[in-house]
Amino acid sequence: MSDWAWALADTARTMPSAQLGDDLDAGSLRLREVVTSYHRRLRAGCAAPDNAIIVGGFRHGLNIVLGALARRGITHLGLEDPGPREHDVIAGRAGLGVVAVPVDDHGLDVARLRASPARAVLVTPAHQCPTGALLSSQRRRDLVAWAQEVDGVIVEDDYDAEFRYDRQPVGSLQGLAPEHVIALGSVSKTLAPAIKIGWMLVPPPLVTQLRQDMRLTSRGVPVLDQFALAALIESGRFDRHLRRMRTLYATRRATLSAAVEAALPKLRLTGLAAGCHALLRLPDDLREAAVVAAAQRRSVRVRGLSDYRVGVGSAGNAAASPLGPALVLGFGNVNESRIRRGVDALAKALTELNATS
Amino acid sequence: MSDWAWALADTARTMPSAQLGDDLDAGSLRLREVVTSYHRRLRAGCAAPDNAIIVGGFRHGLNIVLGALARRGITHLGLEDPGPREHDVIAGRAGLGVVAVPVDDHGLDVARLRASPARAVLVTPAHQCPTGALLSSQRRRDLVAWAQEVDGVIVEDDYDAEFRYDRQPVGSLQGLAPEHVIALGSVSKTLAPAIKIGWMLVPPPLVTQLRQDMRLTSRGVPVLDQFALAALIESGRFDRHLRRMRTLYATRRATLSAAVEAALPKLRLTGLAAGCHALLRLPDDLREAAVVAAAQRRSVRVRGLSDYRVGVGSAGNAAASPLGPALVLGFGNVNESRIRRGVDALAKALTELNATS
Repeated sequence: MSDWAWALADTARTMPSAQLGDDLDAGSLRLREVVTSYHRRLRAGCAAPDNAIIVGGFRHGLNIVLGALARRGITHLGLEDPGPREHDVIAGRAGLGVVAVPVDDHGLDVARLRASPARAVLVTPAHQCPTGALLSSQRRRDLVAWAQEVDGVIVEDDYDAEFRYDRQPVGSLQGLAPEHVIALGSVSKTLAPAIKIGWMLVPPPLVTQLRQDMRLTSRGVPVLDQFALAALIESGRFDRHLRRMRTLYATRRATLSAAVEAALPKLRLTGLAAGCHALLRLPDDLREAAVVAAAQRRSVRVRGLSDYRVGVGSAGNAAASPLGPALVLGFGNVNESRIRRGVDALAKALTELNATS
Repeated sequence: MSDWAWALADTARTMPSAQLGDDLDAGSLRLREVVTSYHRRLRAGCAAPDNAIIVGGFRHGLNIVLGALARRGITHLGLEDPGPREHDVIAGRAGLGVVAVPVDDHGLDVARLRASPARAVLVTPAHQCPTGALLSSQRRRDLVAWAQEVDGVIVEDDYDAEFRYDRQPVGSLQGLAPEHVIALGSVSKTLAPAIKIGWMLVPPPLVTQLRQDMRLTSRGVPVLDQFALAALIESGRFDRHLRRMRTLYATRRATLSAAVEAALPKLRLTGLAAGCHALLRLPDDLREAAVVAAAQRRSVRVRGLSDYRVGVGSAGNAAASPLGPALVLGFGNVNESRIRRGVDALAKALTELNATS
């Protein structure tokens, strides 16, 4: 975070105070130029600064987008199942009906989306949350074809895209179909959640409405922070920071992988091609909740995959995922020795459960 | 704005980076302590830090509050008529029916509110926007009595409260009836709109819901900015800044008053006891729109009072206010010579209109 402190201090010192008087609903032009250029360069994106709107992080952008879709007459939103937590609640509050669309090893099952009343869908194509699947090339093509046929909207959560380990980053859906994709990005994962800056890249016909939504809901986000982020990216410090984090995460990922192989050789660890979490698949006869509780007793905090089911907050759908029982293991904020100790504790918890069952 | 730059740079330099990892939906405890103490000291407020929630400026807070009221089953919101622009649109988007409640020289007409189906009302008691009226003591008591009787909610926009010229600041409604008032404050007027920090002071039974709303809609506002604002207020620089601004605005206000008396001796200027705008009452036979257009031709930008009518965006209610035709003159961002030139140009525009009518 010293990079962010540097950028803010430098911006505060050097920025003409006149620019602080700006109250730009869509965000500063300079940051819009910088993020669209960044997105083009690293995510194979295709958006002009005029089609970018600066928001206060991912959730802020998501709320704005879902509200706008509801006002445009979209009644149902497809959500990955399992998928990011609470998005079903947020969609419901925006007035949208939620359609749970299954996820498999190739990402979202587009055929199931196609059979639903949804004309908009929210996806995490770069590293599906929480399964870690990459949306396959075929599925990407299918998804874009669906959007073209139904005049639908794909909301792309460009989650974990910066951290791929095994190959070059996969491009964004936005670059494939800019007229049908709203891409949402933020620096919550790459810098820190506390910074609260993100962006929406928006098809041209939606720009006017989304700018108005920004005006009516918040009149934009802090201007000096926007200039600081622009300075951070332009200075090259952001790229260096990403490289450092990628190396750090790659080491932690390798540590996790080796620890699981050593302590839990019969279990599969999947979804490791990118990001900061992986899925530990459990034997079918184990109950996730029992494993989570046993881990908790040994001070290891993990979530079960069923926590990410769509509708888990409501009564009906706390059921296990068709993917089978699994634990979501995050390793972004955990150092190597804690990863090793955590996996060992988890192995003991599983042995304990097997002994008693 | 050099104060804000100082605060951000100082905070960026000295704040432990661990605190940047916090993702606090309700805002940092330190800033919540500082703003509740500030509100107690300067606004005779009465809220504990636990009842404060940090938001991204006034509109952000307003959207959160109105959404929460709608979800609690409130169907209608009373709005001052005339009142702040676009609040009717924002209320409608939150799913609330809007009741236009007339404003007179004593502020909101509470008897009219009482006769309506509204169980919540949005008011600018310290300096009514745009008439400049102060909500009288009797009306304050009536408003609180109404809220107690109907178990209603008063949303207090503590607008311009810091800038009173003729006497001590009037206390906030929140201090009178903390169990029925949600107070919204921000530094948009006192520091700069670009800073985008505000606060809600909330009755205890609403705290849990509003914290959840913050989590679901944005997960809070930038943490470093919050620490910077806390530092600015605690350092005494914020108070000094307010004193400087009050002196500056008082000079501009006196200039405006003298210029109107000299150039437009027959017209009344009202609502000058506080804030950065006043109302120039026009002769009854003049059409506001014609005056605004004539001023515009002389490069003077003013708004007519009818622009502030509730429902002005919809077809029905662009009608003149019962207060008669008037112009809203802002003097916060206009230096003295521009104020004098503006009033002179306005006088010429009025002469021109009289000659042609």
